[in-house]
Amino acid sequence: MSRLELPALDPTTVTEKQGSGYPEPFKSRMGDRAKRRLGDACGLTKFGVNLVTLAVGAQSALRHWHTLEDEFVYVLEGEVVLVTNEGEQTLKAGMCAGYPAGSRNAHHFINRSSKPAKYLEMGTNVPGDTAFYPDDDLSIQWTEDGHAAYAHKDGRRYP
Amino acid sequence: MSRLELPALDPTTVTEKQGSGYPEPFKSRMGDRAKRRLGDACGLTKFGVNLVTLAVGAQSALRHWHTLEDEFVYVLEGEVVLVTNEGEQTLKAGMCAGYPAGSRNAHHFINRSSKPAKYLEMGTNVPGDTAFYPDDDLSIQWTEDGHAAYAHKDGRRYP
Repeated sequence: MSRLELPALDPTTVTEKQGSGYPEPFKSRMGDRAKRRLGDACGLTKFGVNLVTLAVGAQSALRHWHTLEDEFVYVLEGEVVLVTNEGEQTLKAGMCAGYPAGSRNAHHFINRSSKPAKYLEMGTNVPGDTAFYPDDDLSIQWTEDGHAAYAHKDGRRYP
Repeated sequence: MSRLELPALDPTTVTEKQGSGYPEPFKSRMGDRAKRRLGDACGLTKFGVNLVTLAVGAQSALRHWHTLEDEFVYVLEGEVVLVTNEGEQTLKAGMCAGYPAGSRNAHHFINRSSKPAKYLEMGTNVPGDTAFYPDDDLSIQWTEDGHAAYAHKDGRRYP
């Protein structure tokens, strides 16, 4: 089989990254989650596109909403439970969801099925974007040198 | 089956729009192409996400590149031929392509197979973005009232 050349890309040639960047105890709660950063691999800078595999019991993220970033997800295989402020809905392959920037409806996916689930997630890269986590003692602080750091809601940094 | 509620969305509930906005003779060359505007249906404004069905012989667009818009496509069903400045590659379901803003590598998909193809296309909404069409006598002119109009390469407007 001939290998694709950019701008085309075979996602299986992109390194799969395990795990999350959250501090503990949140990191472990994500379970077995792996992402391939397809947009980055194509040289895109204005938005990210990740191909995500959620193992049984794994989560997409802590439940959150973004101030400046539009997000969109499209389920490719299996099924996931979408949890929002209004409750739960099950999304099967071929279903999608979109989260407009600034909409305070915190969301995440949980794989409560008995099989792995795959989905595409995309979101705009916006300087100064932050996220809020209504269920958890977590916040994001932007530092003077332009990095985002995780902190408790009272401002104390996580190690 | 229970109907999904926003922010979740069943793409089959979104109206499918046939045809292209190009002037003739380009419009007819696109063939049987239909789009569901999923991002718009979810209230997203920073980027668009369309679920596109290309019938046998249909094309995604005229071959083009964008000045300010990042684009990404992910093939869901069937196969398409990607045509760029460097030639042709066949993308099957599960393959993708990404086109960074300002990269002068003009691209489009053609369905040369014997079955319909489906893909997701996404691109950022950037005021002032324009596109160039190296193979065709087409250009985009921005008008003073903020609309994009199609013109010949010498500036004469299409009717």
